Amino acid sequence: MGHAENAGGGVDISYMRHRAEVAAVKAVVYKGPFSVAVEEVEKPSIQHPNDVIVRVTSTAICGSDLHMYEGRTAAEPGIVFGHENMGIIEELGQGITSLKEGDRVVMPFNVACGFCMNCVEGFTGYCLTVNPGFAGGAYGYVAMGPWKGGQAEYLRVPFADFNCLKLPPGNEHESDFILLADIFPTGYHGCELAQVRPGESVAVYGGGPVGLMAAYSALMRGAKKVFVVDRVPERLQKAEEIGAVPINFSEGNPIEQIKDQTEGIGTDKGIDAVGYQATGHGTDREEPATVLNSLVGTVRATGALGVPGLYVPSDPGGPDEQAKQGMLLVSIGKLFEKGLRMGTGQCNVKRYNRYLRDMIIEGRAKPSFVVSHELPLDQAPSGYDKFDKRIEGYTKVILHP
Amino acid sequence: MGHAENAGGGVDISYMRHRAEVAAVKAVVYKGPFSVAVEEVEKPSIQHPNDVIVRVTSTAICGSDLHMYEGRTAAEPGIVFGHENMGIIEELGQGITSLKEGDRVVMPFNVACGFCMNCVEGFTGYCLTVNPGFAGGAYGYVAMGPWKGGQAEYLRVPFADFNCLKLPPGNEHESDFILLADIFPTGYHGCELAQVRPGESVAVYGGGPVGLMAAYSALMRGAKKVFVVDRVPERLQKAEEIGAVPINFSEGNPIEQIKDQTEGIGTDKGIDAVGYQATGHGTDREEPATVLNSLVGTVRATGALGVPGLYVPSDPGGPDEQAKQGMLLVSIGKLFEKGLRMGTGQCNVKRYNRYLRDMIIEGRAKPSFVVSHELPLDQAPSGYDKFDKRIEGYTKVILHP
Amino acid sequence: MGHAENAGGGVDISYMRHRAEVAAVKAVVYKGPFSVAVEEVEKPSIQHPNDVIVRVTSTAICGSDLHMYEGRTAAEPGIVFGHENMGIIEELGQGITSLKEGDRVVMPFNVACGFCMNCVEGFTGYCLTVNPGFAGGAYGYVAMGPWKGGQAEYLRVPFADFNCLKLPPGNEHESDFILLADIFPTGYHGCELAQVRPGESVAVYGGGPVGLMAAYSALMRGAKKVFVVDRVPERLQKAEEIGAVPINFSEGNPIEQIKDQTEGIGTDKGIDAVGYQATGHGTDREEPATVLNSLVGTVRATGALGVPGLYVPSDPGGPDEQAKQGMLLVSIGKLFEKGLRMGTGQCNVKRYNRYLRDMIIEGRAKPSFVVSHELPLDQAPSGYDKFDKRIEGYTKVILHP
Amino acid sequence: MGHAENAGGGVDISYMRHRAEVAAVKAVVYKGPFSVAVEEVEKPSIQHPNDVIVRVTSTAICGSDLHMYEGRTAAEPGIVFGHENMGIIEELGQGITSLKEGDRVVMPFNVACGFCMNCVEGFTGYCLTVNPGFAGGAYGYVAMGPWKGGQAEYLRVPFADFNCLKLPPGNEHESDFILLADIFPTGYHGCELAQVRPGESVAVYGGGPVGLMAAYSALMRGAKKVFVVDRVPERLQKAEEIGAVPINFSEGNPIEQIKDQTEGIGTDKGIDAVGYQATGHGTDREEPATVLNSLVGTVRATGALGVPGLYVPSDPGGPDEQAKQGMLLVSIGKLFEKGLRMGTGQCNVKRYNRYLRDMIIEGRAKPSFVVSHELPLDQAPSGYDKFDKRIEGYTKVILHP
Repeated sequence: MGHAENAGGGVDISYMRHRAEVAAVKAVVYKGPFSVAVEEVEKPSIQHPNDVIVRVTSTAICGSDLHMYEGRTAAEPGIVFGHENMGIIEELGQGITSLKEGDRVVMPFNVACGFCMNCVEGFTGYCLTVNPGFAGGAYGYVAMGPWKGGQAEYLRVPFADFNCLKLPPGNEHESDFILLADIFPTGYHGCELAQVRPGESVAVYGGGPVGLMAAYSALMRGAKKVFVVDRVPERLQKAEEIGAVPINFSEGNPIEQIKDQTEGIGTDKGIDAVGYQATGHGTDREEPATVLNSLVGTVRATGALGVPGLYVPSDPGGPDEQAKQGMLLVSIGKLFEKGLRMGTGQCNVKRYNRYLRDMIIEGRAKPSFVVSHELPLDQAPSGYDKFDKRIEGYTKVILHP
Repeated sequence: MGHAENAGGGVDISYMRHRAEVAAVKAVVYKGPFSVAVEEVEKPSIQHPNDVIVRVTSTAICGSDLHMYEGRTAAEPGIVFGHENMGIIEELGQGITSLKEGDRVVMPFNVACGFCMNCVEGFTGYCLTVNPGFAGGAYGYVAMGPWKGGQAEYLRVPFADFNCLKLPPGNEHESDFILLADIFPTGYHGCELAQVRPGESVAVYGGGPVGLMAAYSALMRGAKKVFVVDRVPERLQKAEEIGAVPINFSEGNPIEQIKDQTEGIGTDKGIDAVGYQATGHGTDREEPATVLNSLVGTVRATGALGVPGLYVPSDPGGPDEQAKQGMLLVSIGKLFEKGLRMGTGQCNVKRYNRYLRDMIIEGRAKPSFVVSHELPLDQAPSGYDKFDKRIEGYTKVILHP
Repeated sequence: MGHAENAGGGVDISYMRHRAEVAAVKAVVYKGPFSVAVEEVEKPSIQHPNDVIVRVTSTAICGSDLHMYEGRTAAEPGIVFGHENMGIIEELGQGITSLKEGDRVVMPFNVACGFCMNCVEGFTGYCLTVNPGFAGGAYGYVAMGPWKGGQAEYLRVPFADFNCLKLPPGNEHESDFILLADIFPTGYHGCELAQVRPGESVAVYGGGPVGLMAAYSALMRGAKKVFVVDRVPERLQKAEEIGAVPINFSEGNPIEQIKDQTEGIGTDKGIDAVGYQATGHGTDREEPATVLNSLVGTVRATGALGVPGLYVPSDPGGPDEQAKQGMLLVSIGKLFEKGLRMGTGQCNVKRYNRYLRDMIIEGRAKPSFVVSHELPLDQAPSGYDKFDKRIEGYTKVILHP
Repeated sequence: MGHAENAGGGVDISYMRHRAEVAAVKAVVYKGPFSVAVEEVEKPSIQHPNDVIVRVTSTAICGSDLHMYEGRTAAEPGIVFGHENMGIIEELGQGITSLKEGDRVVMPFNVACGFCMNCVEGFTGYCLTVNPGFAGGAYGYVAMGPWKGGQAEYLRVPFADFNCLKLPPGNEHESDFILLADIFPTGYHGCELAQVRPGESVAVYGGGPVGLMAAYSALMRGAKKVFVVDRVPERLQKAEEIGAVPINFSEGNPIEQIKDQTEGIGTDKGIDAVGYQATGHGTDREEPATVLNSLVGTVRATGALGVPGLYVPSDPGGPDEQAKQGMLLVSIGKLFEKGLRMGTGQCNVKRYNRYLRDMIIEGRAKPSFVVSHELPLDQAPSGYDKFDKRIEGYTKVILHP
């Protein structure tokens, strides 16, 4: 499935695709633009000694799933969605060392081998093994390798000693732990990329789940003041509830609003939790670089930007020819004049998930405040539809198979 | 002089402009586009207890002086040029603690106070005191504060305990030490921004003085392989002489040439030592973003870019409307996909100059290999002319008053 | 006064001692072991262009003042005590740039020049200028330079642009801000030395003011679980109130108690907020290395220790000949086997005070919970006496001249 | 074999010990104090899907092998020695992904799993999986787990995708690459622990193979001046040949000698490449803490110490009761006064070996200058004997099976 162009690389993982899979299990299958169905698919099975099979207990729908759902990617019908997954280990390959049947685990959305040049240095979001010809793999995502998604009853996890994070047994904190697969670490990653330190001020653009997790992480790390920029009242309200300062960009230039609250200086750091599908200030059109450029204006000289929000090298729906190729007009002159640093890229979940898990266990973090809905797997089609339309308060949906 | 628009800020340094200066000394004065003259100006005098007066022994012409010389800035006639200065202390303000008459010193091109928020954290290139309303000041440069340049017999140095770096007495290493004012630290800064570590490969775009200093610094820090991209044979030859691999971009796509020598992977790190006045590959036109975009293509996923090369928020000579405002088309999609980090901005010379000075003293570094000409101050007009035209091998010119 | 043996160094600061001081002001003067008096002394005056005179509004007694008070140092009678000082600027030297009359300021206990090799790199606790022949100076402390203390109506602050931290006007947060002079940054420094990161567990030995500030800082930075080891019930109770886990070492081996609460592994990091005057577990004798060795036992392999607690190279009251010379029996074998890192030394207050001030202003930190008593300056003798005897709950005393 | 006391831990690696091994191969077997023999042992075989079998081409004798050889450890007769190993892969477990038959590889001396808490963060010398109950494992070493040594014709490598570093095919650089198993990375590790930066001065205590590699690495990283302290003329000569400054401690106090060459200040950084079996200055007795205390004296305030030299928690041959338990008298008072940082512990080879390999390949490093002898495996007994007695110039011996 998917991404056959990624031939080369020298690493042969073909064995991972061939074995017969016979038992049937339910899964969320992509049928085409704006359509998913819960169908029976072959049950995943051990195909390599380092595999485990996980019975999925929670699996979340991610904003990035909607890119495929809306038909704005090269995803072909038939993909099983789901890269935010947790559950109980049911079967183990004979090479597994640290796990046992019945272990409760959550997996990073990144599939990673643990031994390539990038994994060894902590860049598990850029694994060179699991998606030959490309740096980085994921479950259930177009062009991210042959890994089936976990919006299903069962999930095969490769290199499982490396990819599984153990959780306390039972079902406590289920809706907190599931967020360790992606959005809590991704928000935290924004703070790491921006090098947020105690006592600093931070501007977070975007009050969706990742933006809220970024703001929450910044406060958890000791930021003195965190602004969240959005225009959706519910998001801004949540931002305020966690102790951030809401900035409604539909009520005025967000750069000016933030400078007004920082003695005219701007913030020490900034985080882009929006990405290329941003809406311009004072308009309703997509302006892919608007958040980057707003951050350059918002952050003071010598500051840093963290960009966990997604930018893509190919966007067929981009507003102009350049944007379609991921080329955006960025105020490099101003960025240089201010001597800003910028960190980008998808989260290396494994760098942070152990620490964030422990914050949840100790009662120091409770990220589930962003979860709006929990549904049985069967209601996935309705969940996708409402989440995509942002109706009935759908902001973060967890499915329980 | 200059930059009257930088009013606000709350810090009053007006006293620095008022005192009478009576004795006459020779200095290089900007007369208008493509014209400088050596004229008599008032001798600088102590105007603040933390000032010293330095008798200039060496002062270099910088590529950035040519921006003013060519009339591509807002510089008004009358400016005394020169931000790369060294000499002998001749007079001290009564607040000076660590210096004495006769000390041989070199000054960073950045003027810095040493006590503002940015200076305290090592961002001396972004001092908030010396150029009110702006972050960063320099000697003899438009919009960089009221500080006269050092292409003159004498120079006033403010906050001198902080800004003077002491050198061994005598005249040994004169043409190495003068490079501590700007280009050696600036090249080194490129390595710091790109976080170059031992054993890594590095692509340096630009084989001018700063690019050569960046390559030289990378090798000094233990890089395994350094590429220097240019098309001027003399520059490429110098790169080769110091142990770098020359890449002539007029002979083929530099990205491909470098990938061919890095097993198809690209380099670990990249440095932009060109900036906005870059010439496109396969053309002779200025393409302001060409080096940034080449770096995104050259550096491997998880790598980092250092950008000491200058980008400006306002370039009246830019090739299009966006470029005139410092807005450039950058392949953000690819940069994000690769998870690259980027550090930018002018060098905080004081962070490195002590260490680099000691490398010179210990015989471990000899940066003067980039110096092409040493002239008496009187020949400055000819020096500017030939350097600007890049004739007779003029690449780095030192003036001796 | 004091420390005449520190001759050499090449920096002449003799001017700082000579000028006539005529007006009389009240100050806390050391009279001999267990005796201080509030006496009239000459009013401090501007002696250098970078000096300011501060009218002291708050000045705290520090545990380290008691070392002198108890006669366990080389301090001679006549010293004016006080290195934790804040107040209002009343007079400025003519070289001052960033301050003005009436500014409310707090000063780090370290006196620092801002331009020596160590200050420039942020090691302001190791200034090479202000105490010739030694690295580091302080107000009102034996062997820390010629700087009079601030337990007085007025204080002279040298290099004032560098040493004064501006505060909001008024008198809000007075008992929080005064802690920025020493103990809040010093506790925070313990976290920096131990490299405490979000999600980590930390053991803090010592529940006095610095230990509580260390625990408070660790939680503020996102530690998942912080233990505070002491045996004084009031201290352990305060630790619990701020969210730390109290460990009473009189009720059992603290290492075992902590391992029991960390799955047998120990903590990720450890902080020594006691120093050489530690009492052994299961004894009442001083055992100068007991905290260091307990930390080696408490912290897990690959962890790190932060040691802001004081150790001295000469302790006339030490329990054995080695201890008198600062030579302690440390379990280096175990420390190496675990691959621990260790950071030591007194706090570089200026690195943190701006950030911590802002945490107070934003309402994110309120360190004054450690303050037990506020007294007029006249009651200093009684304050010293009770604090030294630890009676009536005296743990942190602020004097108001 | 060995270390049966390390029961607990929860990880079951018992399978690694049970399978029949039938074919016979030659290996260096420990027979008792001062005695090894080359004997036939069972040929290693695949016992886990992630194992490979390597045909050993080079294997080095390490100074730490001599601790066992001299009977100063708990090693029982029968151990196959050898933790510095390289060779050709001959057989692969079915779980191996990145390696193939015929690959030339070198293995870190540390055995590591790649997925435990410590491995994931780069602390591969403190793996929690391979030696249950302890942090860290190694081949052929007492108490370091059930892993047979590589001074043999064949070696079993567990978790081979993680533990094998690929080398270019052929036999070029054989005596350089073998040093990647331990001493080149270990010397480099000393620089990392001491945070050696370009332009700094460094004092390396110990001119044996690790000390020379530390000095070599420091220069490779851009240190301005490196001192090597020893009293063996051959070692001091090698130090000088690579560009370091030799300091003969039998000719005077090394602290004073170094201060004389650093303007009385001491060095910025220091490395202990000796460990607990140090000989005191001006004596011939072992003084286990002499190097640590000399470093405290040698390094300037605010500096850092790297301690890759071995200290042990139990030394039956220690000079006093405390030393036997790894308790040493350290000048903590002075260390604190100077605010020194200290990093300790055995090398995490995998952090550096890829980079150092590439330095060798690019011709930028040639560590084999420390190799004194290359012998066939059969001559191991003589090699051990002469190396132990330090006769005939035996300093670093490589065996070729």
